[in-house]
Amino acid sequence: MIDITHGIPPQHVLQGALVLAGSLPYMPVGIHVAVVDPGVGSPRDAVALEGGDGRLYVGPDNGLLVLAAERLGGVVRAVEIVNRAYMLEPVSHTFHGRDVFAPAAAHLALGVPLEELGPSLEPEELARVAVPKPEIGAGRIRATVLRIDRFGNVQLNVTAAELASAGVAAGARLEIEVGSRRYSALAGRTFADVRPGAMVLYEDAYWNGALAVNGGSAAATLRALVGQEVALWPADA
Amino acid sequence: MIDITHGIPPQHVLQGALVLAGSLPYMPVGIHVAVVDPGVGSPRDAVALEGGDGRLYVGPDNGLLVLAAERLGGVVRAVEIVNRAYMLEPVSHTFHGRDVFAPAAAHLALGVPLEELGPSLEPEELARVAVPKPEIGAGRIRATVLRIDRFGNVQLNVTAAELASAGVAAGARLEIEVGSRRYSALAGRTFADVRPGAMVLYEDAYWNGALAVNGGSAAATLRALVGQEVALWPADA
Amino acid sequence: MIDITHGIPPQHVLQGALVLAGSLPYMPVGIHVAVVDPGVGSPRDAVALEGGDGRLYVGPDNGLLVLAAERLGGVVRAVEIVNRAYMLEPVSHTFHGRDVFAPAAAHLALGVPLEELGPSLEPEELARVAVPKPEIGAGRIRATVLRIDRFGNVQLNVTAAELASAGVAAGARLEIEVGSRRYSALAGRTFADVRPGAMVLYEDAYWNGALAVNGGSAAATLRALVGQEVALWPADA
Repeated sequence: MIDITHGIPPQHVLQGALVLAGSLPYMPVGIHVAVVDPGVGSPRDAVALEGGDGRLYVGPDNGLLVLAAERLGGVVRAVEIVNRAYMLEPVSHTFHGRDVFAPAAAHLALGVPLEELGPSLEPEELARVAVPKPEIGAGRIRATVLRIDRFGNVQLNVTAAELASAGVAAGARLEIEVGSRRYSALAGRTFADVRPGAMVLYEDAYWNGALAVNGGSAAATLRALVGQEVALWPADA
Repeated sequence: MIDITHGIPPQHVLQGALVLAGSLPYMPVGIHVAVVDPGVGSPRDAVALEGGDGRLYVGPDNGLLVLAAERLGGVVRAVEIVNRAYMLEPVSHTFHGRDVFAPAAAHLALGVPLEELGPSLEPEELARVAVPKPEIGAGRIRATVLRIDRFGNVQLNVTAAELASAGVAAGARLEIEVGSRRYSALAGRTFADVRPGAMVLYEDAYWNGALAVNGGSAAATLRALVGQEVALWPADA
Repeated sequence: MIDITHGIPPQHVLQGALVLAGSLPYMPVGIHVAVVDPGVGSPRDAVALEGGDGRLYVGPDNGLLVLAAERLGGVVRAVEIVNRAYMLEPVSHTFHGRDVFAPAAAHLALGVPLEELGPSLEPEELARVAVPKPEIGAGRIRATVLRIDRFGNVQLNVTAAELASAGVAAGARLEIEVGSRRYSALAGRTFADVRPGAMVLYEDAYWNGALAVNGGSAAATLRALVGQEVALWPADA
């Protein structure tokens, strides 16, 4: 049993999907249960998926699982969990983590075949989360805040390649715009590339562009929230 | 080793007792250590209990353990932990979780008999927590907030049967009163039974009546605190 | 795998070092990975240490590990971790916990010899944290807040012996000064030695002097922060 996190903000399916997709490449193949489930008890399906690399996924059909599976070999089989023989009775209306998903995963771990849990679904029918895409123009990027970690580092929906394509080179001074507020940052590799209190744009451990303040919190400095738009461009542009 | 929670508010013995009593029915029989212990180092006893279903409980004699044990077969034996051979010396005055309870539980797990820990206590002598009772009148319930979870769901000290006895039927519109503030809610089954931002009264996963806001926090909406009184009645009453 | 804490405030190497040094005496000998690493990706070294009692330590060379090791038999060997065969490639610039320290520890657990990780370092070369020292005068102590726990208990950098040397005896009434604000406290043994809401100076579970409010938070009462100075003296002095 490995517990990845209990720190996903309530109801934030996209955050859960991103954390799962970012963490599983560093986890052994196994049975992965994830629950961020604001639609619990409604007609949304409970699902179990088999990934192309042998992982099994159990959780709600709201996009939480599929992002990870598609980055790790794709979804090769999917079933809707309906077989009450593998649930914990009585099934509550609001805690399927306890009554549906964990029991299904435990039965899979004991060797129950996936198809025993319920009827097949077409992988294409599964719900997906929409991950926002950046707008990359000539010398200017309009990005979106994907995640903020507990250090206040602000992960953006851009890759190093996308940054390079917009002219953001290592060592460049950058202008950052959040709402109508302006900040400056340096394109660097790590926090200590700038003096304490200054801001750095770096490639984070999930290979996204991110903003940090050395010894501080970029989220607090920028007053940035998940989902907010952040524009950035080379200072001399 | 299963870690149920480190999230009980400081000094809140009743919260700890409710969480333990709500969680253990879903846990294997074992040795359960629980520590919410504002009286640590004072003359309150350290105790170990045997439950009617074979569970052992270790912790302070302040009511934390007994609520769970009494819902799961009762307390069949109880001892005061006084034998220093099973403590970690030197015993600090303020961290008996480390120096008294965990070592006692570890020794029980190794097969040390309960009575080795110290002299017997009569189960009737053990401290109890007072769980508040609702007032159920004709068409009106005065309930108390028992717990607020990290989603802001507000658990009340009423059961589905008590709600039905006061005329709260599925699908009914309800009036909710907290202090002098009024709110409305729908008697439903799950969060998605109401539109985003609206309030639902539902039977929660511990089989209590609870208030939630779909996609939000009922605690924030109601400005409700644990221990606060909440009145509710059908809107047409 | 034992997870001591994820609760160290960001970038607070001294807090991490104190928690590690306070916890390891109660932990079995093992391989201890600790990461509070604001200099990650900068030229600070990654190190692995062998302690005099057989423990191995893995983490950044910023003082985080050495305080514990020096209290538990000293550092008998130290190496700089540079061998990329024992890292997770590609190594990110900002998450060496995942890419450098955990893989090094896992390899040590599998029997890889310490010296395989990289070249030896002299223990004297390792970085140290500065733990503040109290000023103990005739009948007056100027202490510093070392830690604040989740109960709001305020740990000071003084021992029971130092308190006694300044005339603070059990049962004494004390004056406490934080900034220009004055408070009173009783020199006691545990929280319940004072009435609810009152303040007690006690020897905490790590054998330091500490301030608590019975049923409340001394940190909130004193508006105390880690690193802040606290003066105290007997009320009749």
